[in-house]
Amino acid sequence: MSFQYIEPSGLIDRRGGADRMDWKVSQWISPWDGKEEMEAGIVGVPLSRSSISPSAASEAPDAIRSSWRSFTPYDADHDVDLSPMRVRDVGNIRMHTTDIPRCHQNILRGMGELYERTAVYPRFLPLIVGGDHSITSPSVQAFARHHAGKAIGLIQFDTHFDVRNLEDGGPSNGTPIRGLLESGVVQGGHVFQIGIHSFANVLAYRDYVKEQGITFYTMHQVRKEGLSRILSDVLHTLNRSVDLIYVTVDLDVLDLASLPGSPGPSPGGMVSWELFEAVYRLGKEEKVRALDLVCLDPFRDVGMLSVKTAAHVLLSFLSGYKVRLDGGK
Amino acid sequence: MSFQYIEPSGLIDRRGGADRMDWKVSQWISPWDGKEEMEAGIVGVPLSRSSISPSAASEAPDAIRSSWRSFTPYDADHDVDLSPMRVRDVGNIRMHTTDIPRCHQNILRGMGELYERTAVYPRFLPLIVGGDHSITSPSVQAFARHHAGKAIGLIQFDTHFDVRNLEDGGPSNGTPIRGLLESGVVQGGHVFQIGIHSFANVLAYRDYVKEQGITFYTMHQVRKEGLSRILSDVLHTLNRSVDLIYVTVDLDVLDLASLPGSPGPSPGGMVSWELFEAVYRLGKEEKVRALDLVCLDPFRDVGMLSVKTAAHVLLSFLSGYKVRLDGGK
Amino acid sequence: MSFQYIEPSGLIDRRGGADRMDWKVSQWISPWDGKEEMEAGIVGVPLSRSSISPSAASEAPDAIRSSWRSFTPYDADHDVDLSPMRVRDVGNIRMHTTDIPRCHQNILRGMGELYERTAVYPRFLPLIVGGDHSITSPSVQAFARHHAGKAIGLIQFDTHFDVRNLEDGGPSNGTPIRGLLESGVVQGGHVFQIGIHSFANVLAYRDYVKEQGITFYTMHQVRKEGLSRILSDVLHTLNRSVDLIYVTVDLDVLDLASLPGSPGPSPGGMVSWELFEAVYRLGKEEKVRALDLVCLDPFRDVGMLSVKTAAHVLLSFLSGYKVRLDGGK
Amino acid sequence: MSFQYIEPSGLIDRRGGADRMDWKVSQWISPWDGKEEMEAGIVGVPLSRSSISPSAASEAPDAIRSSWRSFTPYDADHDVDLSPMRVRDVGNIRMHTTDIPRCHQNILRGMGELYERTAVYPRFLPLIVGGDHSITSPSVQAFARHHAGKAIGLIQFDTHFDVRNLEDGGPSNGTPIRGLLESGVVQGGHVFQIGIHSFANVLAYRDYVKEQGITFYTMHQVRKEGLSRILSDVLHTLNRSVDLIYVTVDLDVLDLASLPGSPGPSPGGMVSWELFEAVYRLGKEEKVRALDLVCLDPFRDVGMLSVKTAAHVLLSFLSGYKVRLDGGK
Amino acid sequence: MSFQYIEPSGLIDRRGGADRMDWKVSQWISPWDGKEEMEAGIVGVPLSRSSISPSAASEAPDAIRSSWRSFTPYDADHDVDLSPMRVRDVGNIRMHTTDIPRCHQNILRGMGELYERTAVYPRFLPLIVGGDHSITSPSVQAFARHHAGKAIGLIQFDTHFDVRNLEDGGPSNGTPIRGLLESGVVQGGHVFQIGIHSFANVLAYRDYVKEQGITFYTMHQVRKEGLSRILSDVLHTLNRSVDLIYVTVDLDVLDLASLPGSPGPSPGGMVSWELFEAVYRLGKEEKVRALDLVCLDPFRDVGMLSVKTAAHVLLSFLSGYKVRLDGGK
Amino acid sequence: MSFQYIEPSGLIDRRGGADRMDWKVSQWISPWDGKEEMEAGIVGVPLSRSSISPSAASEAPDAIRSSWRSFTPYDADHDVDLSPMRVRDVGNIRMHTTDIPRCHQNILRGMGELYERTAVYPRFLPLIVGGDHSITSPSVQAFARHHAGKAIGLIQFDTHFDVRNLEDGGPSNGTPIRGLLESGVVQGGHVFQIGIHSFANVLAYRDYVKEQGITFYTMHQVRKEGLSRILSDVLHTLNRSVDLIYVTVDLDVLDLASLPGSPGPSPGGMVSWELFEAVYRLGKEEKVRALDLVCLDPFRDVGMLSVKTAAHVLLSFLSGYKVRLDGGK
Repeated sequence: MSFQYIEPSGLIDRRGGADRMDWKVSQWISPWDGKEEMEAGIVGVPLSRSSISPSAASEAPDAIRSSWRSFTPYDADHDVDLSPMRVRDVGNIRMHTTDIPRCHQNILRGMGELYERTAVYPRFLPLIVGGDHSITSPSVQAFARHHAGKAIGLIQFDTHFDVRNLEDGGPSNGTPIRGLLESGVVQGGHVFQIGIHSFANVLAYRDYVKEQGITFYTMHQVRKEGLSRILSDVLHTLNRSVDLIYVTVDLDVLDLASLPGSPGPSPGGMVSWELFEAVYRLGKEEKVRALDLVCLDPFRDVGMLSVKTAAHVLLSFLSGYKVRLDGGK
Repeated sequence: MSFQYIEPSGLIDRRGGADRMDWKVSQWISPWDGKEEMEAGIVGVPLSRSSISPSAASEAPDAIRSSWRSFTPYDADHDVDLSPMRVRDVGNIRMHTTDIPRCHQNILRGMGELYERTAVYPRFLPLIVGGDHSITSPSVQAFARHHAGKAIGLIQFDTHFDVRNLEDGGPSNGTPIRGLLESGVVQGGHVFQIGIHSFANVLAYRDYVKEQGITFYTMHQVRKEGLSRILSDVLHTLNRSVDLIYVTVDLDVLDLASLPGSPGPSPGGMVSWELFEAVYRLGKEEKVRALDLVCLDPFRDVGMLSVKTAAHVLLSFLSGYKVRLDGGK
Repeated sequence: MSFQYIEPSGLIDRRGGADRMDWKVSQWISPWDGKEEMEAGIVGVPLSRSSISPSAASEAPDAIRSSWRSFTPYDADHDVDLSPMRVRDVGNIRMHTTDIPRCHQNILRGMGELYERTAVYPRFLPLIVGGDHSITSPSVQAFARHHAGKAIGLIQFDTHFDVRNLEDGGPSNGTPIRGLLESGVVQGGHVFQIGIHSFANVLAYRDYVKEQGITFYTMHQVRKEGLSRILSDVLHTLNRSVDLIYVTVDLDVLDLASLPGSPGPSPGGMVSWELFEAVYRLGKEEKVRALDLVCLDPFRDVGMLSVKTAAHVLLSFLSGYKVRLDGGK
Repeated sequence: MSFQYIEPSGLIDRRGGADRMDWKVSQWISPWDGKEEMEAGIVGVPLSRSSISPSAASEAPDAIRSSWRSFTPYDADHDVDLSPMRVRDVGNIRMHTTDIPRCHQNILRGMGELYERTAVYPRFLPLIVGGDHSITSPSVQAFARHHAGKAIGLIQFDTHFDVRNLEDGGPSNGTPIRGLLESGVVQGGHVFQIGIHSFANVLAYRDYVKEQGITFYTMHQVRKEGLSRILSDVLHTLNRSVDLIYVTVDLDVLDLASLPGSPGPSPGGMVSWELFEAVYRLGKEEKVRALDLVCLDPFRDVGMLSVKTAAHVLLSFLSGYKVRLDGGK
Repeated sequence: MSFQYIEPSGLIDRRGGADRMDWKVSQWISPWDGKEEMEAGIVGVPLSRSSISPSAASEAPDAIRSSWRSFTPYDADHDVDLSPMRVRDVGNIRMHTTDIPRCHQNILRGMGELYERTAVYPRFLPLIVGGDHSITSPSVQAFARHHAGKAIGLIQFDTHFDVRNLEDGGPSNGTPIRGLLESGVVQGGHVFQIGIHSFANVLAYRDYVKEQGITFYTMHQVRKEGLSRILSDVLHTLNRSVDLIYVTVDLDVLDLASLPGSPGPSPGGMVSWELFEAVYRLGKEEKVRALDLVCLDPFRDVGMLSVKTAAHVLLSFLSGYKVRLDGGK
Repeated sequence: MSFQYIEPSGLIDRRGGADRMDWKVSQWISPWDGKEEMEAGIVGVPLSRSSISPSAASEAPDAIRSSWRSFTPYDADHDVDLSPMRVRDVGNIRMHTTDIPRCHQNILRGMGELYERTAVYPRFLPLIVGGDHSITSPSVQAFARHHAGKAIGLIQFDTHFDVRNLEDGGPSNGTPIRGLLESGVVQGGHVFQIGIHSFANVLAYRDYVKEQGITFYTMHQVRKEGLSRILSDVLHTLNRSVDLIYVTVDLDVLDLASLPGSPGPSPGGMVSWELFEAVYRLGKEEKVRALDLVCLDPFRDVGMLSVKTAAHVLLSFLSGYKVRLDGGK
């Protein structure tokens, strides 16, 4: 963010005494010029006026961008260096100030355009940063349209079922899964929800979820069986039943102490490193072709805790993806 | 809290675009009218001027009440719907502004009146929300008087022994267990303390606790043996030696990162979901007949982290209790 | 908020050692039953998804309600006791989760119903609590419809002109005045804006405001000439040119240090007591018949500073109104 | 606070690169050894469990002590160097954990002992740091006993009248003036209250204040007439009617934006520098012989804003007192 | 900060539903390309490891840059539109991580280069954003070298004298004025300090300041005489005695309630709008040729209060400068 | 901190109603008088201007000192009473305001003096409280000089490798290990780093670390293998290859949710109680002869979470050391 002009003497420039070998994500993920081939592109979807409770998730894409300078591209935990991968910042989908249906249309069409433009890049994969969870409905629709004829699986990390009826409040952050089921974009049997938690959902929607054939895992199950084993089961099933997988991460799946910056999280939620390991693993999965990250509200954050956690989720996923690209592990 | 009047058109009312199937704890736990039969009643005890260090725990009952709208009555983790259970808000015990002994008398007598009034409800169980830990002494006394002739067991989640001598400072949040032992209301052999932690207690009181025959488990033991196994041991013993069990939860047993809103918590404490599981299990136990929750100081909270955690403790206990009422699991 | 049930002994009740003569606004402003005559009614309009920048102003009505217990109804500064005046809480206008135009329609119709229902009360006056500033457009329209044939004057306390074009973003908190001018509900010559501040507006809209014949006073003028004298000029003009006056207070007119809880305020703004004195005076004015208060975002507040300041604005206005009712001063 | 041991080489010591001419209040105000003559002594009274609403004012004395290192003893505004004056820290009055009446007794007796011990110092003056406002009642009583036979005047900076009845809640921070009137220690005609503010008092107590002959000035009067002129009037009257003046400063007289750290302040209160100038002037007054400062709650502070403001009040008073000692201005 | 790529459809771009006439400072102040003529250039000096107390003032330049999107370039208070003026962001002076003398050398040389490069622009004026106050010493030296042979006047807004001796701690934020006097760059008689405040300075340095012939005005004088009249006096003298004026603004001159984000501010300081008016006026002065702004610590800020206040200072100065360029007022 | 003078009556003193058996660390760890034999001494090193990113770690020693009153000396978790051990506060190493190399020299020489002075105490062990991590380089050098001829092992808890090159920025908190390797004070084969985490290091330095023969364990390994087993491996190796072990704890090894108060921590880090157990165990190790604790920035803390966690680390280490002194376990 600092800037650009460098005097011949080098006395005026943008770095403040930095180390020549130091290398930040902010230096690595540069804006996309609309032409360069890329393996992954970050797309911001700054919509949160569709949130049931007040949310500044519209500020999440810029908050995450500004956090890049706190991270390096080397994943010491898995010994993966992201640097050689071309990850670019595609920018934000344009939103309207007061017309929420038009915002959702823009997501559908904007993502569609992006898929078209990047269709020539053999291994392109989008990282979509919300916004609230309402964006997942048009985002998955655009994904499904682009991959027409393919069966789409959905892996959802979430405290909530997100299957509220659409009649009462329209498409909000409480309805994305319902919207996708009702429009036939995904089938209930291809939806796997992980992290569903107590006192955050109503029985009526648990019933709906069951009727639709959705498989869900509560936090209690995550504690008892381990997220790793649950993921194995999910992937085992999905890899046999669908062609492509879309991963949607509602950050409220995390424990409130680790993620204060969201309208939704509750005490007793998932621990950060469990989620990091999970998305790292999903990054390695061949059929996983898109990830979105929603409901990060930077205005509710404490320090930069939630924003950095969200950024770490994206990087962990990219780390797994890098392993996949390298044909490895 | 919003309100009441509804125009015939429905345009003016208290809900803001809510979903018709959505159902919050704030809609479920209504005030008690003094007559309706209930399975559980929430009683506030807004006393914290008896706290050794400054505490706004007197504000905890109202803080928890205002958090009900953030929770639903369905416990997805254990697949228990609380809605059919009649849980009512009995109100607060009246406190005096400057006369602490009179406050403790009011608790003793107020709880006594409540036990009398509710004696006709076969399965009534009180959830007492402090206030600081000094309230546990008169509260258990009222419980013991009501159940005269029965041996009372005490399960205490706490970082501290709470057995300070009564001569130096009178009955404060550092003395409740001492008060109960000295008055003969409970015997040391029937007291089980879980979560005792390093650098939060003095040796002299460890000695006292041992002399009195109290059994205690440190956080180190909780880490090593697991809370589940410890609880099994405690219940195995208590179920054979006492008639009724009173559970007292000092929230400072939780890790400081998960519960900033208390004068007492320290780093390295219990994790939220461990406590949730523990009280859920205790809710199922036939002999458990009362629970109190103390030392939540909403003024020290970070966001709503501590208040929501406290509310989750109450709901988790109710969830176990619902299973008990259903004769189940 | 605490509650209701009182044991015969009085030991369980809702007051915590209070003084019998103490008397809070929370005890004075009770919910309206739909029938009782009232001199003033508080209406919440919990809409802020129409805000350009993220805003939790939808939470303002409940935040102000919960602050009533921090205030008494006696205005010592002006020696006015509000207690005898019947001020009631009418509740909130019902909002839709995602359909902003329908929300604005609900305001128009809901306020219309309220004006009809209260038409029989000779001196009824509404205090409308937003929400963001977009609510002022339908609110003034309902006011104008109810007082059809009367010329309406508008006194606006605001850092901004609020005359953005409606084509680009639809009716948001940046457009209310434009909306009212374009729909012919008020004339530019009857609009007076006080507190317009540097680096918060663009030249293009200053030009529009001038073309429309709006009179505006910058903070620089407020400092130089004094708010009292400016108000005298405004009232002198308006009292001769209009029949009724609607006052709209955008809290961002206040200095950022006094009002952190709003998306809009800037350093160098109005000081709290200047605004209190101004609305007190407007309360006394015979032609002033409605007041709204907008853009209070409780999520951005520091402590309760902004919420209490907003509540004080409402009470100060009521204080002036009480003097008017008493035919006084 | 750092410490003491200095190696011969000077490499280990308590200063971190400080300037040899720099000189902090923490180096100037040292603990009293019980013998040294002093012109002023700071006494902490760490009692706030007598506060109506929860308060950590008991932590104020230590908070102010720890802020001394942020201040120097030179008052550039009035060109007064406090350094030559012997101001010592006398320590805290011992409080009881749960027996509030005994705390008040300790204040009465402890201050009595201090007055006796310091009676030999011709110009000794105490600066009493609360604690909540309940401490003023025993403190003024001790003052009056020590100066038996002298008429005592009281100048009170406060948002509230503090004359609640003593029957309902006993001696709390809402009752100190009532307590002093009822016990005949001061007469109503000798009490002057400055800063009384709207929506913070009830009419019934305004009536009581008037009946007792107390003179009060509202914030509205402070704004209109200026604090300087009001003080002149007060001093003109008091200097003719009493022998000695006790000044009590309830920090809630200040605007909430300038003093968040108190249970009581409201928007529209006094500005910091008005209060600084006022106490500076009172420091110069021959008859002023004691000052207390109450209701600073460091737990509600934002940064160190309130604590530093409170410390500045004490230093400003000492600055005026230094001028008095120098026989000057 | 958002970004760049725009799909032909316009669906992906950097604006989120903005108004076409809306125009932010972030869109107006663009990076300098090293060639374009400019009237003013913003230079960041991210050095604060030279601060006596810990400071993150090194983050101030980027914090102010990120706040530009909250401001428009139209100064409604003075009816000045800044848009036509070419103000560019020159970037940051390069700092060293641990070598403070080299940092100061870089400032001296870097500013020297900038003055050389911009010497061809007839009316170029730098706005230097620190960093802590130590940067003013090399910055004024570079200014003086560039304008060799000219008498330089210094107008300093500050709570402190900043004339600590250089022997004890080297050149820190407590020494800049001393450094300039001792090196003969400016004469004491040409230095004017405004806002010097009580309990923030020691007597020894007051004496030094007097010996050097510096003129200083305390906050008490600012309150009594008004900042406007003081500035008139200062300018009257300086305009006759020097050729050029350098303005240095230490933000700690502001009241702690208005500027929490600095290591230095104290209660009772200057009010924001007083400072805005003062720098606006100085912007208009023909001899004023540089301004620096120091000691803004974004890590201590509350919300964005201090950062926005600092940005407003810069914009207010530019507003006066625009009037000067227009030959006006 | 409160103070000292006690009236014969005991009414004025430093304790506020405390319990006679209560006993705080603040009463136990008293200042060293320069003569008394001690088993452990706490040394503050208030240097953080050498930190790459802004840091107030210079305030950490005093922050930890002020937290002692929140802890008791009894470790209930391990049943160890620290009271009999003589632990003293040696004070701070003197720092220079702007000369960082001199600060490092002072550490080298100051620690050298301390080792000389305490050489007569057979079991003396220093606890060094930074400051940022740059202090470890001179501190280990002083340790090595004092123990000349002995092979020194280093156990480092850290998120980062801390082996940046020294050419680009000089000795900062990013270079201590590099400095020690390059100066030959320790050999790479004797350095063990635990807690290295993803996206916090660059590949180039991972390569350097490997070349130097350093052994490192990532957080991923800590999760998979357990810290206990890793420590066993490290100690098994070190106990056979070196004579003495120096432990350095960079608090940023902890999870950001548990330790907000540091410039470095990231999400997914170590949990507090893992670190407590680890240092407890190291305290018991015969060859461990010094510990430092760095990069605690109290200005970034949330409440006292980080400061209390840091204090708990020191106490846990002392607890293990007490067991060693007792020849036990």
